[in-house]
Amino acid sequence: MNELELIAELRSLLATTDPRLVRGLGDDAAIVRGRAYAVTSVDTMVEGVHFRRGQLSADEIGHRALAGALSDLAAMGVNASAGDRGGSADRGGSADRGGADVQAYLALGLPGGIGLDEARALIAGAATLARQLGVTIAGGDVTAAPALVVSFTVVGWADDPSMLVGRDGARPGDLVGVTGTLGGSAAGLAVVEGRVERLDAELTGALRARYARPLPRLAGGRALAAAGVSAMLDISDGLATDSDHLARASGVAIELRLAAVPLAPGVTEVAGALGQDPALFAARGGEDYELCFCASPAGRRTVEAALAEASPETPITWIGEVGEIGGSSPAGARFRDLPDSETGLAGYEHRF
Amino acid sequence: MNELELIAELRSLLATTDPRLVRGLGDDAAIVRGRAYAVTSVDTMVEGVHFRRGQLSADEIGHRALAGALSDLAAMGVNASAGDRGGSADRGGSADRGGADVQAYLALGLPGGIGLDEARALIAGAATLARQLGVTIAGGDVTAAPALVVSFTVVGWADDPSMLVGRDGARPGDLVGVTGTLGGSAAGLAVVEGRVERLDAELTGALRARYARPLPRLAGGRALAAAGVSAMLDISDGLATDSDHLARASGVAIELRLAAVPLAPGVTEVAGALGQDPALFAARGGEDYELCFCASPAGRRTVEAALAEASPETPITWIGEVGEIGGSSPAGARFRDLPDSETGLAGYEHRF
Repeated sequence: MNELELIAELRSLLATTDPRLVRGLGDDAAIVRGRAYAVTSVDTMVEGVHFRRGQLSADEIGHRALAGALSDLAAMGVNASAGDRGGSADRGGSADRGGADVQAYLALGLPGGIGLDEARALIAGAATLARQLGVTIAGGDVTAAPALVVSFTVVGWADDPSMLVGRDGARPGDLVGVTGTLGGSAAGLAVVEGRVERLDAELTGALRARYARPLPRLAGGRALAAAGVSAMLDISDGLATDSDHLARASGVAIELRLAAVPLAPGVTEVAGALGQDPALFAARGGEDYELCFCASPAGRRTVEAALAEASPETPITWIGEVGEIGGSSPAGARFRDLPDSETGLAGYEHRF
Repeated sequence: MNELELIAELRSLLATTDPRLVRGLGDDAAIVRGRAYAVTSVDTMVEGVHFRRGQLSADEIGHRALAGALSDLAAMGVNASAGDRGGSADRGGSADRGGADVQAYLALGLPGGIGLDEARALIAGAATLARQLGVTIAGGDVTAAPALVVSFTVVGWADDPSMLVGRDGARPGDLVGVTGTLGGSAAGLAVVEGRVERLDAELTGALRARYARPLPRLAGGRALAAAGVSAMLDISDGLATDSDHLARASGVAIELRLAAVPLAPGVTEVAGALGQDPALFAARGGEDYELCFCASPAGRRTVEAALAEASPETPITWIGEVGEIGGSSPAGARFRDLPDSETGLAGYEHRF
């Protein structure tokens, strides 16, 4: 495919009425009305590394790449729309309820073999998710590449940086919580890869969706930040690895209870079929894009109420505590009900 | 190379004291103090498409990718530092004279065969240019990829969007100007590719530098915008192609004089050695990252004085005029001293 063919269609695929966009596609740069603080993250997905084209449809690839990038903004507590209730918009806001005021910029590398239809579907997949969440795809570039490369830079805004949450604020005595359920994406990948047979068809579809169409918890993250969580990140590399990142960034020792890890529906069946412990499977599985956060015991009810208000169908599960670092407790996270050698804390973190 | 090795070094490689950076590397997202309007562009360079690793050093690849992205901000007239005089900083500002208040975010894809030294040198090449121009590399990600992919998203700021210049403002009667000289980068590529022999060694070095270490005209672009140019873009795909983009975006017919195209030193020699017309070679050659702009005849002296003040060693050459579109003059650019069939206006524009 000639990239020019796709570019010629991008203006209609990415049409927007976003009043914050002063100048959109077609110039040397986009011009966007800003606010006091810009919150920016980059997430790149590469064919053969982060996904395989045969396993995901083009629109799923586009959706998933944008979702992964937006999940980082969710983890900072970037503003999303106030409403976040029910159905497929459970995890996001909705443009017609005020919008999330987030812009996304796409660097798209297209291999020679890709067709215009496939490239168009990829963009449309991202654009559909963007519209659902009130995100504007405001610019980018398309280039030839030896494999499909989808990189989103996403920008959110805050009027006051104290409304945002880093991963370095956990304090001894805090509780550790997670939103939603874990292991669903890893189980979905096992399904997509054909490693699991004889699963219920409905469950298969639900697990595939968890892997292929994750939804960033923008509204939930904002609610948690407003409720005063002390530290937060999104679970992209798996709870075991990401809680360890949070603990090291905060300079604390985190103890988690593996038995408390909330399992996504189907994880027990899939892990069982693979001969693995379901809780460990869920704790190691990446790309759930749930949020892991810390809060003081005194703030626990406030945090629970805030998430229940913003996202009523999203459970919070308290899975551990933050402790002081000391001689036998170096900075890091561990499961108290598991020998250290089995935690699988080696991870794959690529953001800097 | 394991990407984690590189990430572990990034904090020192990209160390900054930028007071606008509230939260930099190491969290889910960077937090940057913003201004009223964000100006954002993405530029991706892919090994085998935009460069070959054997022809450029790793630090040149890093420098060049960032320079290409920043050139788009220069073309919008994004604010840079006031000083822009002499020497290697001729085209940029300088951090210690106030800084350009631009942030860059890097998505870096590393092939398996690349070494840590090479990856480190690439980052250092970009970081050195960034420091020279007052740009902060504030975040990004590193991932495995089948070929080297270097994508920069750059963000500049403006308090008033009327201080920025798009490519769509050219009006009939305007003059068309370019900064600096053209064809140097294409001649440098010919040198790098070994297509030209028996050139003077000093000239060879200078041409190679034009190709390998372009400098975005941030200060010049800002000065031209402040002086009231009606339309502007950077010459990344070649004057012939880019002037055509400008003309079409503005809905005007541009007539250029090929004989007026300012040739970079060495272009005559290289084009001659290749059996090509030097002016046509310069007009078709891409990646000079000079600026092409339009201004009313009444504003000509103001524009010249502004650039002379901001960048005294940078010439302006007036190379054509903007006309009305009409029956025999469709929107677009052409050289009046060249048959249409020879202009080579087929281009390679990949931004959207």
